[in-house]
Amino acid sequence: MKSSQILIPMTKEVPNDAQIISHQLMIRAGLISKLASGLYSYLPMGLKVLKKVEQIIREEMNISNAQEVLMPVAQPAELWQESGRWEQYGAELLRFNDRHGRAFCLGPTHEEVITNLAGQYLNSYKQLPVNFYQIQTKFRDEIRPRFGVMRSREFIMKDAYSFHLNAESMQAEFEKMHATYCRIFERLGLDYRPVLADSGSIGGENSIEFHVLAESGEDEICFSNESEYAANIEKVAFSEQTATCLPSATEEEVLTKKKTSIEAVAEFLNVKKSDCVKTLIIKTKEGFKALALRGDHELNEIKVQNLYGEFELASDEEIKSLNLKKGFIGVKGLNIDLIVDYSAAVMCDFVCGANEWDKHLTGANWTDIKFKTADLRNAVAGDDSPDGKGQLVIKRGIEVGHIFQLGDKYAKAMNANVVGESGKSETMLMGCYGIGVTRVIAAAIEQNYDDRGIIFPASIAPFQVVIVPINYTKSTRVKKLTDDLYQQCLDAGIEVLLNDKKERAGIMFAESELLGIPHRLVLSDTHADNGNIEYKARNNPNKVEVPFSEVLSYIQAQLSE
Amino acid sequence: MKSSQILIPMTKEVPNDAQIISHQLMIRAGLISKLASGLYSYLPMGLKVLKKVEQIIREEMNISNAQEVLMPVAQPAELWQESGRWEQYGAELLRFNDRHGRAFCLGPTHEEVITNLAGQYLNSYKQLPVNFYQIQTKFRDEIRPRFGVMRSREFIMKDAYSFHLNAESMQAEFEKMHATYCRIFERLGLDYRPVLADSGSIGGENSIEFHVLAESGEDEICFSNESEYAANIEKVAFSEQTATCLPSATEEEVLTKKKTSIEAVAEFLNVKKSDCVKTLIIKTKEGFKALALRGDHELNEIKVQNLYGEFELASDEEIKSLNLKKGFIGVKGLNIDLIVDYSAAVMCDFVCGANEWDKHLTGANWTDIKFKTADLRNAVAGDDSPDGKGQLVIKRGIEVGHIFQLGDKYAKAMNANVVGESGKSETMLMGCYGIGVTRVIAAAIEQNYDDRGIIFPASIAPFQVVIVPINYTKSTRVKKLTDDLYQQCLDAGIEVLLNDKKERAGIMFAESELLGIPHRLVLSDTHADNGNIEYKARNNPNKVEVPFSEVLSYIQAQLSE
Repeated sequence: MKSSQILIPMTKEVPNDAQIISHQLMIRAGLISKLASGLYSYLPMGLKVLKKVEQIIREEMNISNAQEVLMPVAQPAELWQESGRWEQYGAELLRFNDRHGRAFCLGPTHEEVITNLAGQYLNSYKQLPVNFYQIQTKFRDEIRPRFGVMRSREFIMKDAYSFHLNAESMQAEFEKMHATYCRIFERLGLDYRPVLADSGSIGGENSIEFHVLAESGEDEICFSNESEYAANIEKVAFSEQTATCLPSATEEEVLTKKKTSIEAVAEFLNVKKSDCVKTLIIKTKEGFKALALRGDHELNEIKVQNLYGEFELASDEEIKSLNLKKGFIGVKGLNIDLIVDYSAAVMCDFVCGANEWDKHLTGANWTDIKFKTADLRNAVAGDDSPDGKGQLVIKRGIEVGHIFQLGDKYAKAMNANVVGESGKSETMLMGCYGIGVTRVIAAAIEQNYDDRGIIFPASIAPFQVVIVPINYTKSTRVKKLTDDLYQQCLDAGIEVLLNDKKERAGIMFAESELLGIPHRLVLSDTHADNGNIEYKARNNPNKVEVPFSEVLSYIQAQLSE
Repeated sequence: MKSSQILIPMTKEVPNDAQIISHQLMIRAGLISKLASGLYSYLPMGLKVLKKVEQIIREEMNISNAQEVLMPVAQPAELWQESGRWEQYGAELLRFNDRHGRAFCLGPTHEEVITNLAGQYLNSYKQLPVNFYQIQTKFRDEIRPRFGVMRSREFIMKDAYSFHLNAESMQAEFEKMHATYCRIFERLGLDYRPVLADSGSIGGENSIEFHVLAESGEDEICFSNESEYAANIEKVAFSEQTATCLPSATEEEVLTKKKTSIEAVAEFLNVKKSDCVKTLIIKTKEGFKALALRGDHELNEIKVQNLYGEFELASDEEIKSLNLKKGFIGVKGLNIDLIVDYSAAVMCDFVCGANEWDKHLTGANWTDIKFKTADLRNAVAGDDSPDGKGQLVIKRGIEVGHIFQLGDKYAKAMNANVVGESGKSETMLMGCYGIGVTRVIAAAIEQNYDDRGIIFPASIAPFQVVIVPINYTKSTRVKKLTDDLYQQCLDAGIEVLLNDKKERAGIMFAESELLGIPHRLVLSDTHADNGNIEYKARNNPNKVEVPFSEVLSYIQAQLSE
């Protein structure tokens, strides 16, 4: 294709909201255009990349015998009421009424629709296992859409749903999809990691996320420095610990006027944050609870949610009503349930609030305090790996895929049964498997760029080769050689972009580099004199002179690498 | 692919709402599944057909240098307010508020979004002309969704929008798209006609619809029996006529008790409907108007709308308030504007209401009546063709495509300008070009079926060839021959479906015929004995015996036909 025939609106200006590099580069290279908060149009170059990502996913899903279908974006409320998610899902679920006043939502996922469909068409165990997938537009009304297509409101997802007679079959498909996802992300040219994860609002037990490692990632991933262990920080599970110290200090009440944070108290008392215990009050459906953590640890909200369901931190008013003093709450003398994180429960002679204004306790111990223990905290770097091998290292990741074992959650609620081998009706088990198709593009760029622009992995670059002729419109010799080369590439089935615009060489070079096309060929009168063409790979600073007669085979060799 | 690996849920039961054959067959053959009123899921076979239709459209649009993009389904209200369509569009436009209370709609078309985009990225006449298209999900909240995917609420459309510096360029692209659409519908194997059409709510002047001719079509298309003239009935324009008769009768008031319809009056007075004039009262923004038509003619609402904008028939109450008598309204003595259709204005000695209860006039004439004339009616079979050649024949059609010259309607409202050759800012002109991608599937079936099921055009059939082995699971010889043949087909790049289910031959034949796969190969022990395979084309009742060794080349010859 010639660049005069395709809109590639490059710009040096980056909008204020483009905080991360992929967002900046996708705007600068003319891949996407913002329509409204969290809504993006894919311009011709962006769509080419998107279609390539889709096609790789489609091919690998087909190889794994998944069947492609296409379900509507609009979904009737009734199905979500059946599954119970109509109530559970928050404002991210975009709800609307049709002209007759019937309630619908724009699908953020399609568990309900596919379970309804499976219940309708799968009748016998003989039809199982089966895996349906679609590549389709989804909508999530994010409270704060950001990072371009990384966290947009409308996006494209590959979502797959499998149905099974038993747990073994569900497990087998889970493993098959695990392998399929590895093939997909490898073909996409991404540096990715499968990590243990929480299932979130989708539900189910086993779940693994696929993360692309990148500084800009919103997730923290914990890796063992000695084993294969890898988990999303929200999922790193700790066990009850055995204390390694004995109480030895005498408890004292000390004045800590206006020292209401752990930092301030630790500094004031000249102790480490890890010598302090912090106490948080939360409001759950069962009432208020006090949670105690080591001063340097962070609360893991998902773990708390898994224990008590939806919860929130108690408000200043509510803390007051419990007769507690904000900033000076401690673990002694509470009149509500106290749950102590495993790591805090093994501390000795610690500092904590005194439950009196402007006072803390030093030399406090758990003796005589009534409490339960639980795993409440996020991992920190240096923690022992939960598999007992090595310590944890923390890196940032972008979630691009997620596979779940849903079990019978949806099938049970929605009566999706088949006749089993014994002739009895049995509830199907389900797995579900998602890939953020549009997000993959941003993630690929986060991992592959330099100060000149995008360096697309070969498999998803909008074009494989760009030809940059110098003086194309002025030198008939250059034009002739260029057109011949261009035609040769087309005839050989190479996806080639010919820059036929009247621009300075420097601008044309900069544009092809910003766009990240893997292979560049430069042709000028000088080259014509020498009988050579200049070749440069986007990911390699070296230029190579290639004789005219060998250019095509040289390029083909590069492409097959 | 083997049929055991793909969900094809065939059924003999047809839902009550499936009135037309394509809807019935798409359900029966397992192509689609209804989720809710006007919302359909595409099952694996249906999606295969859909993808083929998409690909043909994509290839031909690309050949015509249109650039593929992808815009969001959700569109901000602001853009629609800019164009003025937020107010104009009725309840078909599905509107919703996001979590922050901002107004959006689900796009029924994308003129606003693309004009906004063009205004942003097209700055110079040098970038024109340009044509952008997308193949994308649309939403129209039809008051009465029906006919399956023919008139669904969520559907897939190919919509294209071109931008131009002047009318010549817009006209040239219009013609190019006309030719492109002809190529597309030919490749899709459809019997179609381009016809003159009204532009409707999209706006603009020139517009041509592409209709697939079918009894079930919702539109009436008028063709000349002597020329190339073809137009949607709503668009057939008539000119002022010259009277061929002279008033000769004496006007009389006759008693026509309870005869309130043209049929009843004509029968009672023993005259033809075409000897009567009927008078309708409408309510417009300018007030009430009386419209007079020949008794056998129907009002063309679009023509009235083009004259007076949105209007409605006056209610009984309103007619009363004008001191008129419903059922006996006539053209004499009216106190509101009277507009007479060209065909009615040349009548002599006609019958009409007397504006008195239970009375009509006979021998009435236009002498002394104050009125204007206009083109108000629908064509009827036998009318002279507007091009002066021959008479009109009326057939039914399904609209599958529509091309428009929008002119500056959107670009002006939304300030989409470029710097022209003279250096001055100029408003761009636009064309727009749609194809109902999902509707094409239904239309193709309406034209291609028999009492056994669908007869897919070869280019969009889900598979090209189906192999039906008899005793596949029992006869090792049949299995071996079948598997070899299947592999040969796969190796030759033929899209082949192998029916590997344990079913009776009759059922397998019926299924492959219902599904409409163009070519069928049958293999049994008898065939193995004879060294032949049975071949049958879906659209030909004759079976042919083909020697094993020649099957592949025979099939390839059929496919290349």
